[in-house]
Amino acid sequence: MSQTIILYPLSNFTFTTKEAQPEEDPSVAARLQRLQNNYEDYGMRRTVEGVLVVHDHGHPHILMLQIANAFFKLPGDYLKPGEDEIEGLKKKLDIRLAPKSPSFTEEVDSWEIGDCLAQWWRPNFETFMYPFIPAHVTKPKECKKMFLVQLPERKVMAVPKNMKLLAVPLFELYDNSARYGPQLSAIPHLLSRYNFVMQ
Amino acid sequence: MSQTIILYPLSNFTFTTKEAQPEEDPSVAARLQRLQNNYEDYGMRRTVEGVLVVHDHGHPHILMLQIANAFFKLPGDYLKPGEDEIEGLKKKLDIRLAPKSPSFTEEVDSWEIGDCLAQWWRPNFETFMYPFIPAHVTKPKECKKMFLVQLPERKVMAVPKNMKLLAVPLFELYDNSARYGPQLSAIPHLLSRYNFVMQ
Repeated sequence: MSQTIILYPLSNFTFTTKEAQPEEDPSVAARLQRLQNNYEDYGMRRTVEGVLVVHDHGHPHILMLQIANAFFKLPGDYLKPGEDEIEGLKKKLDIRLAPKSPSFTEEVDSWEIGDCLAQWWRPNFETFMYPFIPAHVTKPKECKKMFLVQLPERKVMAVPKNMKLLAVPLFELYDNSARYGPQLSAIPHLLSRYNFVMQ
Repeated sequence: MSQTIILYPLSNFTFTTKEAQPEEDPSVAARLQRLQNNYEDYGMRRTVEGVLVVHDHGHPHILMLQIANAFFKLPGDYLKPGEDEIEGLKKKLDIRLAPKSPSFTEEVDSWEIGDCLAQWWRPNFETFMYPFIPAHVTKPKECKKMFLVQLPERKVMAVPKNMKLLAVPLFELYDNSARYGPQLSAIPHLLSRYNFVMQ
């Protein structure tokens, strides 16, 4: 009944750097304004993010990006109108972490996207998101899906210069929404149904 | 990619009462002592619990038991050594909530057990449990699995007299570990990957 996931050691992965990827919006207010503008043109925003899991000394760690030594985020981004969520997530992961430019199409299939782990809903053009559609909300403004990404035994990733890639242990995320926010601190719960085999 | 679950309205379900079912142990200390005694005889305790979901006015609610007007728990219990977890959970749900005595074996198959939603691990003979096996813990003392239980369109349940059965909305559980504890307050996260269809 519980699915088994193979984890490889952090030391199997090689991290290089590449060109900086500046934030699309200069502020939270600007980001919410773009969300509203896009909503009027295309409807609900669909966002996809990858939960990349490795292990270090036998404990699962999540790969996440830290921007400007401040906030943490999972690799991913919002989809274009009509873009497929799985193919779109592969492309977003490539843009963020592949050593080659994503114009090399042979790279686009190098991510193995697993189960949907969670959906987060944004009821208004505000920062709050919830893991359910709140009562009386009929038109959410954004739905963010988090997917398990099963990493191969070895992989080279390139991190944009303005970001750091950190491997954060589950015990550090757990019960720590003060530091990581409600979405990232829930990852230990979302992964708890899997049985991990550490290679 | 996201699984669809049909929810029926709370008003479709009928709740009657039955004989009281006193707690097996008179205190937390006694419960931990029994856990330790059982561990020495049979190894790690395996516990199974059901997450029963209905909707009320279009918002998902979880059926949970309240004991002595104080703490909340999901229906379920620990398994006997060697007992199958799915069959065992059906039996525990029957003992707790079926109108007939579980000796009527035709009742035992009336629960549809779905996905494993979470596993919680108890590293020591103490109250703390975690949604992962903490680093350096090789012999956890208990593993509790929570399963989604898909309810049929209508059902009669009988609640032991010393307990109340409550339908608690997801928005009440969310971010409310102060009231519901870390396990129950995580249920909204665990269910967020499903798309609910309210009948």
